Amino acid sequence: MAEELKKGLEGVVVADTRLSKVFGDIGKLIYVGYDIRDLAAHASFEEVVYLLWYGKLPTQPQLNQLQARLHAEAALHPSILQALKGYPTGAHPMAVLRTAVSQIGLNDPDAEDNSQDANYRKALSLTAKIPTIIAAWARIRAGKEPVAPRDDLGLAANFLWMLHGHEASQAEVNALNVYLVLLADHGMNASTFTSRVVTSTEGDMYSAVVAAIGSLKGPKHGGANEAAMRMFREVAEAPSVKEWFESEVKGKGRRIMGMGHRVYKAPDPRAAILKQHAQAICGTSEKCVLLGVAEELEALALADPYFVERSLYANVDYYSAIVLDAIGIETDMMTPMFAMSRIAGWSAHIIEQWNDNRLIRPRGNYVGPVDLAWVPLDERRDD
Amino acid sequence: MAEELKKGLEGVVVADTRLSKVFGDIGKLIYVGYDIRDLAAHASFEEVVYLLWYGKLPTQPQLNQLQARLHAEAALHPSILQALKGYPTGAHPMAVLRTAVSQIGLNDPDAEDNSQDANYRKALSLTAKIPTIIAAWARIRAGKEPVAPRDDLGLAANFLWMLHGHEASQAEVNALNVYLVLLADHGMNASTFTSRVVTSTEGDMYSAVVAAIGSLKGPKHGGANEAAMRMFREVAEAPSVKEWFESEVKGKGRRIMGMGHRVYKAPDPRAAILKQHAQAICGTSEKCVLLGVAEELEALALADPYFVERSLYANVDYYSAIVLDAIGIETDMMTPMFAMSRIAGWSAHIIEQWNDNRLIRPRGNYVGPVDLAWVPLDERRDD
Repeated sequence: MAEELKKGLEGVVVADTRLSKVFGDIGKLIYVGYDIRDLAAHASFEEVVYLLWYGKLPTQPQLNQLQARLHAEAALHPSILQALKGYPTGAHPMAVLRTAVSQIGLNDPDAEDNSQDANYRKALSLTAKIPTIIAAWARIRAGKEPVAPRDDLGLAANFLWMLHGHEASQAEVNALNVYLVLLADHGMNASTFTSRVVTSTEGDMYSAVVAAIGSLKGPKHGGANEAAMRMFREVAEAPSVKEWFESEVKGKGRRIMGMGHRVYKAPDPRAAILKQHAQAICGTSEKCVLLGVAEELEALALADPYFVERSLYANVDYYSAIVLDAIGIETDMMTPMFAMSRIAGWSAHIIEQWNDNRLIRPRGNYVGPVDLAWVPLDERRDD
Repeated sequence: MAEELKKGLEGVVVADTRLSKVFGDIGKLIYVGYDIRDLAAHASFEEVVYLLWYGKLPTQPQLNQLQARLHAEAALHPSILQALKGYPTGAHPMAVLRTAVSQIGLNDPDAEDNSQDANYRKALSLTAKIPTIIAAWARIRAGKEPVAPRDDLGLAANFLWMLHGHEASQAEVNALNVYLVLLADHGMNASTFTSRVVTSTEGDMYSAVVAAIGSLKGPKHGGANEAAMRMFREVAEAPSVKEWFESEVKGKGRRIMGMGHRVYKAPDPRAAILKQHAQAICGTSEKCVLLGVAEELEALALADPYFVERSLYANVDYYSAIVLDAIGIETDMMTPMFAMSRIAGWSAHIIEQWNDNRLIRPRGNYVGPVDLAWVPLDERRDD
């Protein structure tokens, strides 16, 4: 009896989780019971980190303690900074992040301790250090000295300080904080699933996070925001947005990057929130020439039967590209920003997997030859 | 309607493959149609690499070309050797391999080229360089200078040259070659599956291989040979093997490491072949005090109803530990040896996944709270 091939594992339920749930049919996302719209309106990224790790919102003393520990862990060991300075400046920023996180594991005395206590310590260290790595690499590859983290700023503000070397506006900090809140977890997405597969072998947290970074790096997963940004730039060069839409999308059948989602058949709730923040920042600056392009293109799609019938709405990547661009994130640094947020979800899923672990080992369906007789080397012919 | 939870994905068929098939009920393993027993008896590891990559055995000129290309790619860039010399000597060798492979990707101009041609080039480069990394790290952490690869030796002989700094005996080279042949692929095992999940996001080969290394590192996957070796040492300290078996296994219910397998319900064909090679090497040296322990323990299990009823036979890890120990591999270097072989299968699966790709994105079953109302920070109570 042939077993059914579940290519892509679409619809296959692989684990219980208490972390997040996507209601794709009504366009709703919750983290541990809280609507993402409430979290985006009220919560700091640090509160969301606490919620995902400990299953409840922190009290003020608990939040203070978390922030103090994040500050204490944010600096990079000199050997990591030294390594970053030696990498080729043209290297893919996600490959740099993958390598740096892997190397941090070599120096961590907790690396091979898979107890829950050690896993919480490693989750905290990674959540604190990933922003520092990203900001340092952005500066190093541009020939600038890295800027050390400060212990009087929240995670979003501190990142922008380390990136730019000056304090960001409150609107920029708010926009980045909301971005980090919105991207922190999303069910059993491919990078989170990758981290759980590695953990299922009783692999350590560094191995699981390094694997997740490599998975998020893929253009079909975390790379979609960069693709959307590049598309907006292309559209901006066209005679008009409408002309580009007619010629490229309707005429040539090109996909609009950042529209449609395997899980959402209703509008992605994260897109609307990011759009509001894009409008809030861009109203006070001239940085966002592409917001108008994105809005006009979205309106064309929303009025087109092809997009309406297929429920192809703007997803989180679409407006996150605009927000990140507006706060000074270079396009190829957008996927690392995704990792800066998603480390919260990855580490929470890793800890959850450890608490109820079973090796994830599916099967392949062999379709190759069978019963071939061995042929000695000198009797083989090239055919 | 609740969907069925497929924890561990046991029995779920995730992809078509032409690479290998495990016949668990009759204890048979084939690569691209060839019985592993024929390959172990006749083939070099390089022929198996060619078979997995190109779907057929190479002719002599094709094999010569592959070997020449492996020789040309075996040396490490000075920046990688420099990095290895800076790592803490106590770091886990698999974490070192994970970091070094990730860093190699930073310098490879092909890193972001996911064409089939580039993927074959990267597969070749990694297959050539992983032995060099492992041998270099074994020497560096012992305070010795790395030994450069030679271009007049096959992959197995060359590795032993780089590791020991002198040529190995023919029996040792044969044993390592057979080990590499036997471990090169094994259906949809956890690390191979990890590499396909990363590839499914259109992630690059370095990201996929780095993830696979982290997955193989886990004690439930590649770490099992080390666990078997440590157990043999413990048994050797006991008054007798029989006494240890009665007291630890029958008395305390401890598992025998390296016995039993999720897929095999008949003897693992690889175990018998490795046992023969262990006997061949150990007959001419005094290195293998533990072979006798392993054989006696296996005989006790084979005569015990508990093991017979549950089809718990020695698997590949059991005798590979003895073989690797006999050729001078330190116990914590045994999982890297597994990676040296499995890179052939990983890279072949990655190329196969690219040829018919679909994002691997399963679902989670949310069991957490729903509809929680937001509570402002100053109203939260610790409970």
